Amino acid sequence: MIAPCAQKGDIAARLAGFATAFRLADAPPEARAALSLSLLDFAAVALAGAGEEASRILREMVLGEGGAGESTVIGAGGAKVPARAAAHANGTTAHALDYDDTHFLHIGHLAVVIFPAALAVAEREGAGGRAFLEAALIGYEAAAHLGAWLGRAHYEAGFHQTATSGAFAATLAAARLLGLGAEEMRRALGLAATRAGGLKASFGTMAKPYNAGAAAALGVEAAFLAGRGFTANPGAVEAFAATHAGVGDEAALAGLGRDFVLPAISHKYHACCHGTHAALEALGEALAEAMDGGVAPEEVALVEIATHPRWLDVCNIPAPQSGLEAKFSYAMVAAMRLAGRDTAALASFSDAACADPALLALREKVKVTGDPALPDTAARVVLRLSSGAARRAAHDLAAPLPMAAREARIRAKAAALVGEARAEGLWQAVRALEEDAPVSRLSGLL
Amino acid sequence: MIAPCAQKGDIAARLAGFATAFRLADAPPEARAALSLSLLDFAAVALAGAGEEASRILREMVLGEGGAGESTVIGAGGAKVPARAAAHANGTTAHALDYDDTHFLHIGHLAVVIFPAALAVAEREGAGGRAFLEAALIGYEAAAHLGAWLGRAHYEAGFHQTATSGAFAATLAAARLLGLGAEEMRRALGLAATRAGGLKASFGTMAKPYNAGAAAALGVEAAFLAGRGFTANPGAVEAFAATHAGVGDEAALAGLGRDFVLPAISHKYHACCHGTHAALEALGEALAEAMDGGVAPEEVALVEIATHPRWLDVCNIPAPQSGLEAKFSYAMVAAMRLAGRDTAALASFSDAACADPALLALREKVKVTGDPALPDTAARVVLRLSSGAARRAAHDLAAPLPMAAREARIRAKAAALVGEARAEGLWQAVRALEEDAPVSRLSGLL
Repeated sequence: MIAPCAQKGDIAARLAGFATAFRLADAPPEARAALSLSLLDFAAVALAGAGEEASRILREMVLGEGGAGESTVIGAGGAKVPARAAAHANGTTAHALDYDDTHFLHIGHLAVVIFPAALAVAEREGAGGRAFLEAALIGYEAAAHLGAWLGRAHYEAGFHQTATSGAFAATLAAARLLGLGAEEMRRALGLAATRAGGLKASFGTMAKPYNAGAAAALGVEAAFLAGRGFTANPGAVEAFAATHAGVGDEAALAGLGRDFVLPAISHKYHACCHGTHAALEALGEALAEAMDGGVAPEEVALVEIATHPRWLDVCNIPAPQSGLEAKFSYAMVAAMRLAGRDTAALASFSDAACADPALLALREKVKVTGDPALPDTAARVVLRLSSGAARRAAHDLAAPLPMAAREARIRAKAAALVGEARAEGLWQAVRALEEDAPVSRLSGLL
Repeated sequence: MIAPCAQKGDIAARLAGFATAFRLADAPPEARAALSLSLLDFAAVALAGAGEEASRILREMVLGEGGAGESTVIGAGGAKVPARAAAHANGTTAHALDYDDTHFLHIGHLAVVIFPAALAVAEREGAGGRAFLEAALIGYEAAAHLGAWLGRAHYEAGFHQTATSGAFAATLAAARLLGLGAEEMRRALGLAATRAGGLKASFGTMAKPYNAGAAAALGVEAAFLAGRGFTANPGAVEAFAATHAGVGDEAALAGLGRDFVLPAISHKYHACCHGTHAALEALGEALAEAMDGGVAPEEVALVEIATHPRWLDVCNIPAPQSGLEAKFSYAMVAAMRLAGRDTAALASFSDAACADPALLALREKVKVTGDPALPDTAARVVLRLSSGAARRAAHDLAAPLPMAAREARIRAKAAALVGEARAEGLWQAVRALEEDAPVSRLSGLL
């Protein structure tokens, strides 16, 4: 019943082949750079999310269970629990704010499943930074390619791809850090397949970040068990696709280990609805150009935003009354940008901001229209000045910023989330892992 | 997004309503009697299964993780771990032999998910026997009705119903023992729904019993988290059916709490392939009748077995060479029965038995034919004696034995699995739980 070796259709063998053979040096520099930025982003977002209710409840569950002090629980003052439990809590904590990285190929979030699994196992094994980054990079590439392999039909049927593709990726990352051979990895993937899951019906509840944590824990568990001799059917990976509305297009996996898709990762730079981000970027560009020309913000008479019509039902609340509603309001986020507020900071989106007379006045200057010709990742902004002049800019999130610009933005975001000093400490730790410092160099700060 | 109260289509509310209101006295006596027999069966099968490799690996994982000594790990000399982990190991251990109870309505195994979850939480909470049995009975009825609600299409699509329906049932049993209210229970079910799973592609590997253990652990986890304020979408229960090829026929749930289906539970009385059981029962009846008439076993000239043709490819190995093959051989199991060997005992199915001259001689007297007119749960046997006389008997597993006969059979099976004294101790402990002895009265023997 279980195929003894790799063959066409043996997805587990293909994944295991990549995950056992890959070396960090095989990846292009921009993939490794993007990975480090995602790691900084993950660490800052997770620390900022540790105060959320979902994070607190998961953390208290695993701390209450206790056990072997293998791996750090984020936001628990350095407390450690068994790796499987740490991955569960940390995945939930990292996704609690929904402010982490995404990949359009994967149709989901990557950091929140892969890093918690890899970090927990790396700490348990006392791994060096390079081994950890190598395992995480394997996870990222596998998750994105598997996301494409499962296809959009899988997501549209109701599955939370973050947790489904993510579980397989977490399994590979954990298995690599445990030094599993290809045959053990195939069994680990078969074991992950029989329990991978996550429903989009959970969106809007704590069960969404829980899905991420559970997928990370499953990856650790599957790798541990397979490494100890547990058997499973590697063909269950294909059975997972067949039973979960997956397309299972093998061509989507052809580039694994050759076409590195990590550089196309997308980070969130604003702590509000993703639908507002392209407009915020365009507005920022137009405003910077105007201010370079000597224009003061108070000279802005009108901000015209054109966006894909689908967003008009999602994030166009004209007069938000709460911090949460402000995150879904073009008018409000544009007003905040005009007023120089930091839209990367969680605290900017407060109930008080919705009653701030300065912001209310600016809010009235924003006009939003739908344009079906725009991709839903893009927006156009026209800044009309009291002088009668205009500044125009457009932005498409599908075209990522240059790496240096991304580094600046993510370091600024981290500072907005956890403070300058702590963000700088996290970044230095990430850089130290690149130089093979022990993984505790980073986990000790979480 | 989350419905505030029970309404048509609100499956979670319907389940929670039953699970909060049910009292043990509401169930007919035969349902309670069947539950106690299933509990004895579970305990004996789990203890006998503790030596299996899958059980050992899971047990070593949770013992290695350690933590709060809440709940007994079966086969670990009284060692205790957190309830969630104990449920995981014990579900795997209980299903490792595939010798546990089944329900045709549920299309799966019930004990191996429900008892591990209920026992772990009951121990943690220091519950009395009645509260434990009440929770377990809730789980059994819910699992069977949910199995019917998901329907055969769900199973045929590739899902392991033991683990899918079972996860919801385990959640209800755990939630009841934790004293959750109906609203918390709805959220617990929503949380279980987003992570319930299990693939039939795992059959034939250790991942099959793992599915049972993982479902039990998920039930405990979902109940714990919901009880601590975790949110989830109760509508995810319906979303689970919609995304997992479930029929979602509400009529199947109409009888929950009114039509108790537990008395129809089916136990395995022979440690071999289920396809041989009806024939073994019929042979036993014919043989008993012959011996009552003064016939000695050596006077049997021929055993004619008629079975549904589907079994001819499954369990009709004419000359088995190993203990495993013997379990899939009508000729061999019939020979063992003629020779007075105990087909309930695992040790009977040995490689040595396949080379035993007495059994080889008897094996030659067995003739097997397929009869498509028979249900696949039934068999007919004709015992032809050297005198020329014949004894005929037929058996259909779909018609359960009277409760007193079942008690005798399960107690004999338990004795065959763990020895007379230990089996008697387990049975006395089960009876003590009926009288509300603390659940540790049983768990202390595991």
